[in-house]
Amino acid sequence: MSELNLRTVLVTGSNRGIGFEFVQQIINSQNSPHKIFATCRDPGAQQSQELRKLSEKHPNVVVIQLDTTNPASVNASVKEVEKHLNGEGLDLLINNAGILTQNSLETQTSEDMMNVYNVNVVGPMLMTQAYHHLLKRSGVESSGKSAIVHISALLGSLEELPNLFSALPVISYRCSKAALNMLSRCHMEGYRQDGIISIAIHPGWVQTDMGGEKAPLTKQTSVAGMMKIIFSLNEQHNGTFVDWEGKTIPW
Amino acid sequence: MSELNLRTVLVTGSNRGIGFEFVQQIINSQNSPHKIFATCRDPGAQQSQELRKLSEKHPNVVVIQLDTTNPASVNASVKEVEKHLNGEGLDLLINNAGILTQNSLETQTSEDMMNVYNVNVVGPMLMTQAYHHLLKRSGVESSGKSAIVHISALLGSLEELPNLFSALPVISYRCSKAALNMLSRCHMEGYRQDGIISIAIHPGWVQTDMGGEKAPLTKQTSVAGMMKIIFSLNEQHNGTFVDWEGKTIPW
Repeated sequence: MSELNLRTVLVTGSNRGIGFEFVQQIINSQNSPHKIFATCRDPGAQQSQELRKLSEKHPNVVVIQLDTTNPASVNASVKEVEKHLNGEGLDLLINNAGILTQNSLETQTSEDMMNVYNVNVVGPMLMTQAYHHLLKRSGVESSGKSAIVHISALLGSLEELPNLFSALPVISYRCSKAALNMLSRCHMEGYRQDGIISIAIHPGWVQTDMGGEKAPLTKQTSVAGMMKIIFSLNEQHNGTFVDWEGKTIPW
Repeated sequence: MSELNLRTVLVTGSNRGIGFEFVQQIINSQNSPHKIFATCRDPGAQQSQELRKLSEKHPNVVVIQLDTTNPASVNASVKEVEKHLNGEGLDLLINNAGILTQNSLETQTSEDMMNVYNVNVVGPMLMTQAYHHLLKRSGVESSGKSAIVHISALLGSLEELPNLFSALPVISYRCSKAALNMLSRCHMEGYRQDGIISIAIHPGWVQTDMGGEKAPLTKQTSVAGMMKIIFSLNEQHNGTFVDWEGKTIPW
């Protein structure tokens, strides 16, 4: 299969952090897509201001209101995206929206477990399900390739757990990312015949609202690394779990 | 450390299937425990009749009403268990209660994702959190060892996914069991210094309401295998994922 052809892309949680950086780097990539669907929960909010400005400057950036955990909102977004696509498929879905809460075995609550799972796993499940026909249209039905990128985390690695547990127990987050990796594996196997590649990527510890100020990695470096992986995606990557530099992470 | 001394045990989802079989085999084990706390959501229901009968015949079987997903219910159960324990600790917690629903990438709903996660992951999280002080009392504070057994599933193995995906996509179940394995790893690391061993066990494909009639394994064989593992538990098992015969399952 050829390189991934990024004509149409959708990024969730795109108003800040890694999501916003993805939109910026995709715009500036060599073959800037016709359409970048930049979704977020509240495009009118203060924290979406930069995204709105970007969209004014770049008419191929289409900002779409979307709550990934709400099936009605997800379905409404599909309708809007389809209008813009005008018969085209979706080449790349980046399930980036996610949350992290601080908790330990002692302080973890059921509400937080459910809420984090809803955003970090159920959202990507709903999104991929709703956009499957458009990914398939770009996959087997045209260029033969499209991709789902799940923004996962090293903290979701069962094998690696002992290394960072005492500093970052984050129970609800860890459980959600292990489950997200499983979802990515389900997409690998279930959508293989559709020419859709599913991959889970750990962006590294990045200087964002989530990562905090102590993080060693800039958004630019992390996303540049991930974009390199995305552009080179092939069947060998299907169902894998790698970091922003392309190194395999054990489950 | 010595063999696990089963003086006090709690089993969730104990009115039928594997849970009920655990209670029966524990009663009949060589050193039958002082107390077996057999919990289920509705002890008065028709499907709890056998458990009620067993409890009438064996006064060391204490039936306790418990919804593992409800923090208030979990906390109320701790109070009741403490009365019976009279200062003793809990040697073994078997997080057995779980559900499986049939669904595929196409039919999976968010409600089902949330519901299955709640029972299969949030329940074990709440139970272990609430019983931690009693497990610790049996662990580092007395005999030096106690255990948490998470009834997991091969379908929660990320590595093994391609083998059974087309026959059993069961997205919500797979995601929940991968997350449960992560929870077990968190318990391994977080409770290591308390003398508590955490293990995730795949019971095999068993003839129960969940497993169906085609399952090759009887409850008796599966639970006998798991009991053998439980009796031999030592620090080497902490944080592992094995099947009912003790064979390691890859993450």
